[in-house]
Amino acid sequence: MTMKKIAILGSTGSIGLNALDVASSLGGLIDVVALTANRNIEVLAGQIERFKPCMVAVGDESAARDIAGVAGSHGTEVLCGEDGLVRIAELEDADLILNAVVGGVGIAPTLAAVRAGKTVAIANKECLVAAGEVITREAKASGSSLIPVDSEHSAVFQCLKGESRSSVRKIVLTASGGPLVDMSAGEIEQVRAAEALRHPNWTMGRKVTIDSATLMNKGFEVIEAHWLFGVDPDRIDVVVERKSVVHSLVEFVDGTVVALLSEPDMRLPIQYALTYPDRMETRVKGLDFEAMGSISFEKPDYDRFPCLRLAFDAIRAGGTVPAVLSAADEVAVEAFLEGDIRFGDIYRILCEVVAGHERREADSLEAVMEADGWARREAGEIAGKVARRR
Amino acid sequence: MTMKKIAILGSTGSIGLNALDVASSLGGLIDVVALTANRNIEVLAGQIERFKPCMVAVGDESAARDIAGVAGSHGTEVLCGEDGLVRIAELEDADLILNAVVGGVGIAPTLAAVRAGKTVAIANKECLVAAGEVITREAKASGSSLIPVDSEHSAVFQCLKGESRSSVRKIVLTASGGPLVDMSAGEIEQVRAAEALRHPNWTMGRKVTIDSATLMNKGFEVIEAHWLFGVDPDRIDVVVERKSVVHSLVEFVDGTVVALLSEPDMRLPIQYALTYPDRMETRVKGLDFEAMGSISFEKPDYDRFPCLRLAFDAIRAGGTVPAVLSAADEVAVEAFLEGDIRFGDIYRILCEVVAGHERREADSLEAVMEADGWARREAGEIAGKVARRR
Repeated sequence: MTMKKIAILGSTGSIGLNALDVASSLGGLIDVVALTANRNIEVLAGQIERFKPCMVAVGDESAARDIAGVAGSHGTEVLCGEDGLVRIAELEDADLILNAVVGGVGIAPTLAAVRAGKTVAIANKECLVAAGEVITREAKASGSSLIPVDSEHSAVFQCLKGESRSSVRKIVLTASGGPLVDMSAGEIEQVRAAEALRHPNWTMGRKVTIDSATLMNKGFEVIEAHWLFGVDPDRIDVVVERKSVVHSLVEFVDGTVVALLSEPDMRLPIQYALTYPDRMETRVKGLDFEAMGSISFEKPDYDRFPCLRLAFDAIRAGGTVPAVLSAADEVAVEAFLEGDIRFGDIYRILCEVVAGHERREADSLEAVMEADGWARREAGEIAGKVARRR
Repeated sequence: MTMKKIAILGSTGSIGLNALDVASSLGGLIDVVALTANRNIEVLAGQIERFKPCMVAVGDESAARDIAGVAGSHGTEVLCGEDGLVRIAELEDADLILNAVVGGVGIAPTLAAVRAGKTVAIANKECLVAAGEVITREAKASGSSLIPVDSEHSAVFQCLKGESRSSVRKIVLTASGGPLVDMSAGEIEQVRAAEALRHPNWTMGRKVTIDSATLMNKGFEVIEAHWLFGVDPDRIDVVVERKSVVHSLVEFVDGTVVALLSEPDMRLPIQYALTYPDRMETRVKGLDFEAMGSISFEKPDYDRFPCLRLAFDAIRAGGTVPAVLSAADEVAVEAFLEGDIRFGDIYRILCEVVAGHERREADSLEAVMEADGWARREAGEIAGKVARRR
């Protein structure tokens, strides 16, 4: 492959750190031209020293002041706030924008990058869950390509390589089942954060790990798959594969199924997104089939993990409903992580917010952000009430 | 896809019959312009009535006389002998030649088709096992494409779609283990034809079913994979997957593995070969992952199934050795099916023939055919001696 210039939005998070590791391992093939972080100035400072980006963006003025010294000594320009994020997302000099920001704050920069015709590697879940309609429409208009980073979508994306989209019969997303897969409904209701954060196969950020425990994460992936691959929710299945060795599968119209397997190592889909359409070497070992034992697939339990059904319902309802679900989930998970509400409350809060939402078309960023803001307020209020009752 | 004109060499065998089924199911997309059969005139007559090919070839003059009436009434020209086969393999009017002939007699027509620049769907094992060097060299020179029909090679071929050959780290061919997978060495030695013909997952011709029982078939597939995909034998693995649901896998340089799965239905890879690069609908169901239970992989047992090792040794030795192994195997399997020798004698005869062979370069059809003829005579003699001792 030829050298690529990349900008990483959210470089101090789990995906961002891994992406920088991958960029280093690819030597001169990746030039990191811009980075953004919210408040983790210490880590960002180290990244500036190591990668010497020409530009960084941070969360606010105070963070900007804190990074000014290090940035100045490397000739790195410092931007701040959402405007800063968006400016980096549109950066003329970048061939690829990796959006690894966590949360709804990732939506606007993705849209900006897409409108600027950039190739965007999407690790931020919210942008496609909440604003998939707008983003895919604008990407089509500008000719921007979207490359998934998430292991499941990367797997589907790779299984579709060289295939026509019209020959897809079904997409099958795999789920590890999460840390609570063997718990009873009663145990799940009461599970503590520490336990819910103990994912069996993947080390990820806290928000997405809790979403993996509720299977809300898998639900969001269904919504993302719908937008990324243009497949109706009725043609998207979820199966539990506990080893996280099969990262997803595609069934074609002839009955053939293509599956993507690997060690559960986040750097693989990240590297694939950075090097696509090339595939570069890694030191990741192939699978030892004989040592691996058996692979099995189970139906997910929609009763113990009702958030998964919520996601299917949301994408079928369409419009602003997925945006509302996504925003409310951010608030509810935060409340759970703060110890304010029980694990089981997350689902109930989401249900209540969605039920109270008046669906609108999600055909503009404004419509999405309005729904998003409304859902956050609603979820916050409901979570507050629940917390006071506990 | 646009309409394709195909010629089927070996239309009355297992693959040929299935290919005609597939052609029918694809309606007007496939026009069957030529057929060949050896002696199964009755079945060929029915095929002429149904598909009205412009040309057929049969094994000999007597067969030609037998088919003359039916052929005449449909304006079908009748050719005979190996010349007939070769003429059809080069048929100007055909877009695709499906070589489904069984045995070494399939080598010359494949080479003819390749030299004529045809796209050749290869179901005949012997041509790549014995003459892989010549055939792939000539295909490169003429620009002819080779499309595998065998489920394992079709799987690899499909897993490689859109990928660069240089990004392949390893090819992993799956094996069902065959009908004798759980037998002891002593039981295998004495197994009768009826039992060895009882393949757990596939209904195929008798020769290939016995080869599946010895795992010689898998060994031949290793040799074919070497030539089809340009991968050294050290980078080809065999794993046992008893359900024949995973048809093979490719490991790429980044550690990612792509696998192809489906119901074990021969019509799938046949149709893929006929419609490639398009993928057309079938009525074959996708996999029911939850009903399927688990998939597991085991190391093949090279001690109980030493023919597999013979194949690896043969392709490493190269030159005329694989041709000798292939030809000797045809004779030995035939002797076993006739009841002349024991199952365990097949391996011993192959060993003796290979050990007695003076390796030469296999850089011409003549060299290959000379080795082939020598091996048949040797194997016949040894089998005769063994039979007289029994």
